[in-house]
Amino acid sequence: MATPDAKAARAPAVTLKTPKGTRDWSGQDMLLREEVFKLITDVFKKHGGTPLDTPVFELKEILSGKYGEDSKLIYDLQDQGGELCSLRYDLTVPFARWLAMNNIQSVKRYHIAKVYRRDQPAIARGRFREFHQCDFDIAGVYDPMIPDAEVLRIIVEVFGALDLGVTIKLNHRQVLDGMFAVAGVSADKIRTISSAVDKLDKMPWEDVKKEMVEEKGLSTEVADRIGEYVRYAGTITETLELLKSREELVANEQVKRGLDDMTLLASYTKAFGISDKISFDLSLARGLDYYTGLIYEVVNLPPKPEDAAPSGKKSKKDDPASQVGSIAAGGRYDNLVGMYGKKQIPCVGISFGVDRIFTILEARRRKDGLKQRRDIDVYVMAFGSGFLTERMSVAQRLWSAGIRAEFSPKVKPKLPQQFKAAEGIPLGVILGQEELDNGQVRLKVLGQGEGKADDEKPAEKDNGKLVSLDDLADEVKKLLI
Amino acid sequence: MATPDAKAARAPAVTLKTPKGTRDWSGQDMLLREEVFKLITDVFKKHGGTPLDTPVFELKEILSGKYGEDSKLIYDLQDQGGELCSLRYDLTVPFARWLAMNNIQSVKRYHIAKVYRRDQPAIARGRFREFHQCDFDIAGVYDPMIPDAEVLRIIVEVFGALDLGVTIKLNHRQVLDGMFAVAGVSADKIRTISSAVDKLDKMPWEDVKKEMVEEKGLSTEVADRIGEYVRYAGTITETLELLKSREELVANEQVKRGLDDMTLLASYTKAFGISDKISFDLSLARGLDYYTGLIYEVVNLPPKPEDAAPSGKKSKKDDPASQVGSIAAGGRYDNLVGMYGKKQIPCVGISFGVDRIFTILEARRRKDGLKQRRDIDVYVMAFGSGFLTERMSVAQRLWSAGIRAEFSPKVKPKLPQQFKAAEGIPLGVILGQEELDNGQVRLKVLGQGEGKADDEKPAEKDNGKLVSLDDLADEVKKLLI
Repeated sequence: MATPDAKAARAPAVTLKTPKGTRDWSGQDMLLREEVFKLITDVFKKHGGTPLDTPVFELKEILSGKYGEDSKLIYDLQDQGGELCSLRYDLTVPFARWLAMNNIQSVKRYHIAKVYRRDQPAIARGRFREFHQCDFDIAGVYDPMIPDAEVLRIIVEVFGALDLGVTIKLNHRQVLDGMFAVAGVSADKIRTISSAVDKLDKMPWEDVKKEMVEEKGLSTEVADRIGEYVRYAGTITETLELLKSREELVANEQVKRGLDDMTLLASYTKAFGISDKISFDLSLARGLDYYTGLIYEVVNLPPKPEDAAPSGKKSKKDDPASQVGSIAAGGRYDNLVGMYGKKQIPCVGISFGVDRIFTILEARRRKDGLKQRRDIDVYVMAFGSGFLTERMSVAQRLWSAGIRAEFSPKVKPKLPQQFKAAEGIPLGVILGQEELDNGQVRLKVLGQGEGKADDEKPAEKDNGKLVSLDDLADEVKKLLI
Repeated sequence: MATPDAKAARAPAVTLKTPKGTRDWSGQDMLLREEVFKLITDVFKKHGGTPLDTPVFELKEILSGKYGEDSKLIYDLQDQGGELCSLRYDLTVPFARWLAMNNIQSVKRYHIAKVYRRDQPAIARGRFREFHQCDFDIAGVYDPMIPDAEVLRIIVEVFGALDLGVTIKLNHRQVLDGMFAVAGVSADKIRTISSAVDKLDKMPWEDVKKEMVEEKGLSTEVADRIGEYVRYAGTITETLELLKSREELVANEQVKRGLDDMTLLASYTKAFGISDKISFDLSLARGLDYYTGLIYEVVNLPPKPEDAAPSGKKSKKDDPASQVGSIAAGGRYDNLVGMYGKKQIPCVGISFGVDRIFTILEARRRKDGLKQRRDIDVYVMAFGSGFLTERMSVAQRLWSAGIRAEFSPKVKPKLPQQFKAAEGIPLGVILGQEELDNGQVRLKVLGQGEGKADDEKPAEKDNGKLVSLDDLADEVKKLLI
């Protein structure tokens, strides 16, 4: 075979890029991503969550029929003989497949992984073809609304950990669908009218009404009745009061079931201390077909006083929170697992839009002007004639004690080069002939003016503290606390 | 659109499996995997490693011409319009692409991710089509052998952290190729003879000789001269002595360069305190074309006294360490990055075979009979009439204090059910009417005989310690230390 050199000479020029809609993660971005994942998984673990990981591709037939029109966005693997496979499109379908395949009756599982959609990417807005999902779901038969309330609590804890103010907008599919029925929408039109109403966070009511009447064939009277209902948002208790005051709604069986759930939820969210983060928003509808009960999405803005206790109707268009997209969303889906197995397993869950969350945190970090972090504790350096193997031996002592240490990879590095390489590292260990002869080194707190300070106060030059080699790791640990 | 229920009724039966050669990760396996990754990345971070993540697929042309015959094992994505892409085959090529694309001169990067090979899977032996690689590489121009020695130190630290005894077998491509030249192998046959020699850990010398003579057209004399050289292994110092005692070898320029490197390495590995883990094994050749200097692989067995200080030649066939496959491997590759960019960036690195490592650790865990771990600190339960919202409120206090807590998701769970659900959880908080009236709960250390012990000593039933709600989180934390 040719050597790499020979190949390089012959090879045609290769386009040096990642595929469209994908990116590399490195440096500070990657460290931030790891930090975010750590904060989120710590919350999941506090709630007894257990991790799941599934293959990046699934049998094609597992994915088919789950995503409606969006199925065209699925990446297929080439048929190279054997099974036909596709890259996963979300983490919910693999979860349902796993539950059914292993006949699991009950689990709290979380899954952080990349998913794939052949969509038009919009990199600046954080929309990629390869992007992360971060899902927590509770599967199993429980007493009503208890796991649903815990998922809401998890949402609040996650954004608390990330120090992001949020409002959880929620609604109930049974309330919504019943409301549409009461307003006079026929059963076959409920999902499409629901989609139109879902746009109220981006469009004024007049445009939504126009879409319902002109495109979807609703009568003006029916549209107006819908408008009366859906343009209301308040605390769970407030919205419940409003709904219960409307006799025609309470008389509807579906609405009634939804209201029973929401009454429990009002009590449970109070016990969990999260009522003030929640807005029961009758315009929220969510796109996915498979939701069967509570639905919610999270926007990045704390509730304004008017939001938390609205005096009555308000136009969603005026709500600044709605100008920012949702950064987490989810709901209850009791029928999805039954599509694979014989048994229905009720599920409720949340998916965090971590790429969008990174975008917000990144912007905040840039604004705060945080310095580059260095994740090394000690830089081992030497005066004079190099002392390479001595520096190695000292680094080895530190590593063996669990301390993060580096040294110059040169046989005889110059001292200024070594101080430069140590920038941002808190401690320096300095080797010199005399000290080594006595089994000692100098331990110095760095970043207190190796350069500038010397010009100002040349007399007070700080060469660090003399420490014996045997005590070094302990002394370093004391300074790192 | 049809509802999920209607779809489920119509849908053809779906095969409930993961694609061939892939698997799900959950439960104890997944927790073990996370623990292993954590231990390994902690070592990488101690050495200043910075994480990199690349897309799961690359432009097809990036991968082509890098893997020789194995290219047929690459998974391609279907051509759905746009760029042609393939799933990554390893993490080294994406690393080289990233270095060249970003014109990075120097970095210590690590990358833990899945790679994809359409190979014949052998699940029992831990060989999958989707499997993990865990790579650490140092790129940049450094003084000779310093980063190479640090990579060896990292290998020793990783297996120390995993509590696995290992031997690093290493060799040098320049020594090996020079040795072949001295023995009389023509330049065009060096790589194929090298591959034959690499089989010495699985085959007796006679079979390797036969392959070289009968299949690869070497004369018996040349083969015998190779045999004289390559069947030797010892400490770096010992093997160096042997090689330096052979005038015809030292006279060869290539061998000479290799010996200079190995002389430095002997000194650096001594400074890093890892000499006793290393066997300089002249039969090690490694398959990949792109190595240019030091090469190594790691086997899971501590060096035997004979290995560490062999008295002379020994048959590799008799070495029980060689019966276990390698669990990490790597080397120096100075020309790969230049295949993408204009500039060569010298690199040296190691890839840990984490799936094989899991298999070994799993077997050990089963042998040790470790119990299922529960990652919850406190189970919140109640006597009597349910106290659901009260249990929720107590759980909320614990979560807010960073404590991992669960409770029964039933309105009125029975007490034995609650004790059963709490099995393996260290602490229980028990709610009762009387205690709650006083703003108190009972805090109890679990697993000390809620069931059996009661039968034995019914009189000494331990109902736990009375704690005020405000002190609960602090009291729990004290008990968890």
